[in-house]
Amino acid sequence: MFDLNSQTAGFDTENNALVIIDQTKLPNEEIILSLHTKEEIFSAIKELKLRGAPCIGVCAAIAMAVLSNDSKAVDSDSFFCEFEENYNYLLSARPTAVNLFWGLNEMKKTIVACKGESLDNIKRILSLKASEILENDIKTCRSIGEYGAGLLTGVNAVLTHCNAGRLACIKYGTALSPVYVAKEQGKAVKVYADETRPLLQGARLTAYELTKAGIDTTVICDNMASYVMSKGLVGAVLVGADRIAANGDTANKIGTSGLAILAHHYKIPFYVCAPFSTVDFNSKNGGEIPIELRGENEISEMWYKSRMTPEDVKALNPAFDVTDGSLITAFVTEKGVIAPEKLCEYKEI
Amino acid sequence: MFDLNSQTAGFDTENNALVIIDQTKLPNEEIILSLHTKEEIFSAIKELKLRGAPCIGVCAAIAMAVLSNDSKAVDSDSFFCEFEENYNYLLSARPTAVNLFWGLNEMKKTIVACKGESLDNIKRILSLKASEILENDIKTCRSIGEYGAGLLTGVNAVLTHCNAGRLACIKYGTALSPVYVAKEQGKAVKVYADETRPLLQGARLTAYELTKAGIDTTVICDNMASYVMSKGLVGAVLVGADRIAANGDTANKIGTSGLAILAHHYKIPFYVCAPFSTVDFNSKNGGEIPIELRGENEISEMWYKSRMTPEDVKALNPAFDVTDGSLITAFVTEKGVIAPEKLCEYKEI
Repeated sequence: MFDLNSQTAGFDTENNALVIIDQTKLPNEEIILSLHTKEEIFSAIKELKLRGAPCIGVCAAIAMAVLSNDSKAVDSDSFFCEFEENYNYLLSARPTAVNLFWGLNEMKKTIVACKGESLDNIKRILSLKASEILENDIKTCRSIGEYGAGLLTGVNAVLTHCNAGRLACIKYGTALSPVYVAKEQGKAVKVYADETRPLLQGARLTAYELTKAGIDTTVICDNMASYVMSKGLVGAVLVGADRIAANGDTANKIGTSGLAILAHHYKIPFYVCAPFSTVDFNSKNGGEIPIELRGENEISEMWYKSRMTPEDVKALNPAFDVTDGSLITAFVTEKGVIAPEKLCEYKEI
Repeated sequence: MFDLNSQTAGFDTENNALVIIDQTKLPNEEIILSLHTKEEIFSAIKELKLRGAPCIGVCAAIAMAVLSNDSKAVDSDSFFCEFEENYNYLLSARPTAVNLFWGLNEMKKTIVACKGESLDNIKRILSLKASEILENDIKTCRSIGEYGAGLLTGVNAVLTHCNAGRLACIKYGTALSPVYVAKEQGKAVKVYADETRPLLQGARLTAYELTKAGIDTTVICDNMASYVMSKGLVGAVLVGADRIAANGDTANKIGTSGLAILAHHYKIPFYVCAPFSTVDFNSKNGGEIPIELRGENEISEMWYKSRMTPEDVKALNPAFDVTDGSLITAFVTEKGVIAPEKLCEYKEI
């Protein structure tokens, strides 16, 4: 079927389940979860057992196939009604995640196009669609990796931030895909991984998946990026993206904009690797991208044996920041390597 | 004797001890340590129970007085020999901080000038010298605060990194002294404090001492500095220094150089606040300053309930970095506010 050592999530068609690796337990425990019910899937998304925008989108599609296959409905009307209920229920797991909506919606478009078909046929078509979405994610990430690997000539090591690897997608990832593809091509690229406070996706997830893949990885604290660049230890910076505005301004994990400024200062290429679907042509520039502010306890208490800040001190916890398009050397997408000012030209390609 | 609520360390002459607040236990526990032996003092410096360049310098001087007072030597030669042994032993506790060398050396110059005096007299003179060094630190920091406060006209909030407050000195601090003096002058300056991974001196120590002093403080993760600057939340950056080369290149807590680059990008003044003794005219530029590399476990395990990186992943942990002098708006010292290129002119003032 698939190997969860190389894939983050999958569709177990034999047992009709969404299978994932529980990311909240990494890197200390590798726990595979086989999810069947809508409640199990809802909490896996809600509690970040599965995370990463592309991964959430794919898993949402698989979830709709799994739930449809398990439907006890005997007629179209009740089947469609149940589908709609599951759709709304899962959508509420992370109401702001664009990819969750996208994945669910792809399935909705599919079922709408199936009207008139037998229930068995509809179930079969939904399962095929979910598998297709999964395969497309893998293909897209693979393309990003191939274009990205081409940029790593003469680069022995890269710096990355957060986790934009296979754990955020299905396979290959976005920012890490060039590293995986380079390895396949016989080129060993070392990775410096920012630990990425406060949720430590770099320390926990990026370090986990790269080490597992046999890639030479060194974790640094976020504030060490300038040191690493100044010492000439990295030849490029590769990051993912949560949303890219039409002018190239890019929202990504908090800290990305600082890295871009440092890379610019040290004259190191700064690449944003993302599926072209991440470009939001409705946002003219980064100022229009809303930034989520998260809880103070993620900074002051989470992970720690004891509280790390005084009880009465405040903490500010923006989850993302916006990198000025002018600081981005290029976008690496499945459509190719695109300069920020050329993004619009690729809109209809 | 002294109040450890307003003073970080002191010379307990009654019990012949170096008295410090154990900074590794803050902010959760306020534990006072009374140090007598060279081993106790060495590990207090090594394990960062006492830390902060000026504080280390003062405490090293007090330590030499304490150890000299406890000497069982019966003649000058063995007394001097023991002094030399203690000097070399303590000097090896931290390689980057010039103040450790400075503090020890002040005592060495004192003992050298004492040749011919009785051992009792030498001990008395060393104790007086240590007390004088402590008092001078307080005076120096106060001057830095007065010069620095003058730079905060129109500045409602500053960003600081690590802890260069009273906990890094004896009283007032260096980078935080302008904030304390401004408060005395009736001007409330807010502080954004980088948490400062991996040892979290910002989250634990800066937040602790500022909150205790009633100053409005917000902790951020190190990777949020760019966000805070981009939103116009701070009007200046104030940091300390561990060693300043003759050309203005400055070694300070890891992450400082990145902040200076960000401040330059966002056109925010970047001030290095330090006693003039931090200038090492023997280091022509930052390239000559050795950078201490610390243990990987500080990144992967320390503070956490469970390990945060995979067992087999590496971590790089430089404790300091070097900020290019050209990125520093000015040095704020007890001799005044000095442009980087003017440092040498103040050498003999």
